Amino acid sequence: MKKRTYLMYAASESDSNILYASGFLAPDPYIFIERAGEKIMVMSDLEMDRAKAQSKAKKVLSLSKLSEKATGPGKPLLPVEKLIGAALRELAIKAVEVPANFPLSVADSLRKQGFRLTPVEDPFFPGRLYKTPAEVALVAEAQKKTEHSMKAAALALRNSTVKGGHLWLDGKVLTSERVKKIINLALMQNNVVGAHTIVACCDDAVDPHNEGSGPLCAGHPIIIDIFPRDMDSMYFGDMTRTFVIGEPSAAVRRLYKAVLESQRAALRVMKAGVTFLKVHETVKAVFAKYGYTTGLKDGRMQGFFHSTGHGIGLDIHEPPRVASVPGKLEEGMVVSVEPGLYYLGVGGVRIEDLVVIRKNGITNLNRYPKTWKP
Amino acid sequence: MKKRTYLMYAASESDSNILYASGFLAPDPYIFIERAGEKIMVMSDLEMDRAKAQSKAKKVLSLSKLSEKATGPGKPLLPVEKLIGAALRELAIKAVEVPANFPLSVADSLRKQGFRLTPVEDPFFPGRLYKTPAEVALVAEAQKKTEHSMKAAALALRNSTVKGGHLWLDGKVLTSERVKKIINLALMQNNVVGAHTIVACCDDAVDPHNEGSGPLCAGHPIIIDIFPRDMDSMYFGDMTRTFVIGEPSAAVRRLYKAVLESQRAALRVMKAGVTFLKVHETVKAVFAKYGYTTGLKDGRMQGFFHSTGHGIGLDIHEPPRVASVPGKLEEGMVVSVEPGLYYLGVGGVRIEDLVVIRKNGITNLNRYPKTWKP
Repeated sequence: MKKRTYLMYAASESDSNILYASGFLAPDPYIFIERAGEKIMVMSDLEMDRAKAQSKAKKVLSLSKLSEKATGPGKPLLPVEKLIGAALRELAIKAVEVPANFPLSVADSLRKQGFRLTPVEDPFFPGRLYKTPAEVALVAEAQKKTEHSMKAAALALRNSTVKGGHLWLDGKVLTSERVKKIINLALMQNNVVGAHTIVACCDDAVDPHNEGSGPLCAGHPIIIDIFPRDMDSMYFGDMTRTFVIGEPSAAVRRLYKAVLESQRAALRVMKAGVTFLKVHETVKAVFAKYGYTTGLKDGRMQGFFHSTGHGIGLDIHEPPRVASVPGKLEEGMVVSVEPGLYYLGVGGVRIEDLVVIRKNGITNLNRYPKTWKP
Repeated sequence: MKKRTYLMYAASESDSNILYASGFLAPDPYIFIERAGEKIMVMSDLEMDRAKAQSKAKKVLSLSKLSEKATGPGKPLLPVEKLIGAALRELAIKAVEVPANFPLSVADSLRKQGFRLTPVEDPFFPGRLYKTPAEVALVAEAQKKTEHSMKAAALALRNSTVKGGHLWLDGKVLTSERVKKIINLALMQNNVVGAHTIVACCDDAVDPHNEGSGPLCAGHPIIIDIFPRDMDSMYFGDMTRTFVIGEPSAAVRRLYKAVLESQRAALRVMKAGVTFLKVHETVKAVFAKYGYTTGLKDGRMQGFFHSTGHGIGLDIHEPPRVASVPGKLEEGMVVSVEPGLYYLGVGGVRIEDLVVIRKNGITNLNRYPKTWKP
């Protein structure tokens, strides 16, 4: 296979392609080039030493030297599009692949400078779809720490008492915010950053991305969705459980039963070679059997209106999607399996595990029990 | 002034321009359009309700409806570049400004579809340079919580004892990692996320972006740089102090004195109308007076080789830069002031505050004392 020549300009704290390629974490955009298998970085004086010590690049060029070479000594640093042009010329590169999200203004300038840029659709690195055993171990580690924080949240729920329809703990009403803090502190104990953790109850939970707020209610499902990033590895964990404190209504019990059954059915059919559509349809078939419908009702989407799952790794959401899309599961993919049902008045239920796709089935990265009793 | 028509496609958790424009936080990229003052979002079914409730957009279009209108019912969702094209046609828009980092592959497709895209260099929203009083209050709040975590770190240092040249606390050696955890937990108590917090000692500290690791040493400067994001507002704080436990050498004392003097000198000259260069040169003049030089030595950059400061807000680093660059301070800018000196064998010293630029001076958002004794 011919080795690719590609160019990236991005900040690896928010762009996982450049992090995957360089192994170098930085808050500001930097230049990364691979030429026929040789990894090259072009760095500011500030980042030179760290890039040499921490990155996968064999060659680290100096931005200021490149600039000086082009302008003569003592001149201000060239703008980045000119610096990239200078670097490409220095490396005798005329054409490069770039990621789909390569910045347009730099691209326009490079094309004007005579370079040929070909944007490549995601996944820019097809290898990111298939996790190596080492990567699986990192996701598993992140997920273990995520389960640890779920335990802390469940403990708070379990220790709470019901007063006036609300949960109370240690003499104060138990709010979504308090439980989120318990979770995020438990995560941070392990150097894992939880942000936008969801602890949502009642109608809040009907919007799957609503983080939840205010007092938690008894008898209603409380969705807890934790998707933090492990700062030791930069890989993500992601899991959801739904709990009820007090006595759930028959409608809530039935909702929980249907979601759990749908997730089990999905997990059962999953293995290499099975289409994403088949998994998604398996979930939908269970919901159809129960008579649950999906659509706009009272001005809100209700039912099951998101994907069954998504890839996860250095990004919280990365290819593939497990939904009504082309393609199939392949060995080494790591995906979430997270069916959910959401109805105003009843609430929402979602249950989510992470699984590794194997030849004959899956490895579930979760151990945490699935029951509405925390 | 003619109102702009612009297009964005980005994830607001990592792209602050779209967050600034829409006020809507989401982990995945979404479409945001402003047409002559009217803010419009195009959202998936999953995010429709939340976008209507939480964003600044007056109009929220449905991705799936746009797609269905173009393809007929029951067909798979169009790819995003086609959806954006459909949205622009629906809104009778032919030409748009886009941010400099607009994704190239979408841009190439839109141009092929006949739209005119003009990338605009940063700052895409010049307004982001000048913080409103409400924004200043949010940065001040984030900085207050940052100072709170600095106090927790200083307390750990103060309570430590020296044994065999290392710091010890509660019967265990005090490492960089332990102090970082103390800081990050104190931040998380206030729903602030600290990531890549720096606690660096000895030669680690000579690389200003080295996070530091291992046992902390007595007599050597320990740089603590905390730059977390407040999840309540998404604004950043950023501050640095340098501490020494035990007796600093004469060289360390002199280094600390020079850095503190340089920062005070910079703060004294700062006000609206003063050039960035003047502030930076003020710092350099103090270092020159002390005889400190900057350059490559023993294969490492040593001396003062970074900017004096940077803008801060929804991004940790945003325009302007306080360095040898064109331009000047203007009222309402919020910038860091963080001179530092770094020498192998002696270590590094950096002191950083955040300040608001006023007509006749600055408002310093920090209260924390500046002394090497924690």
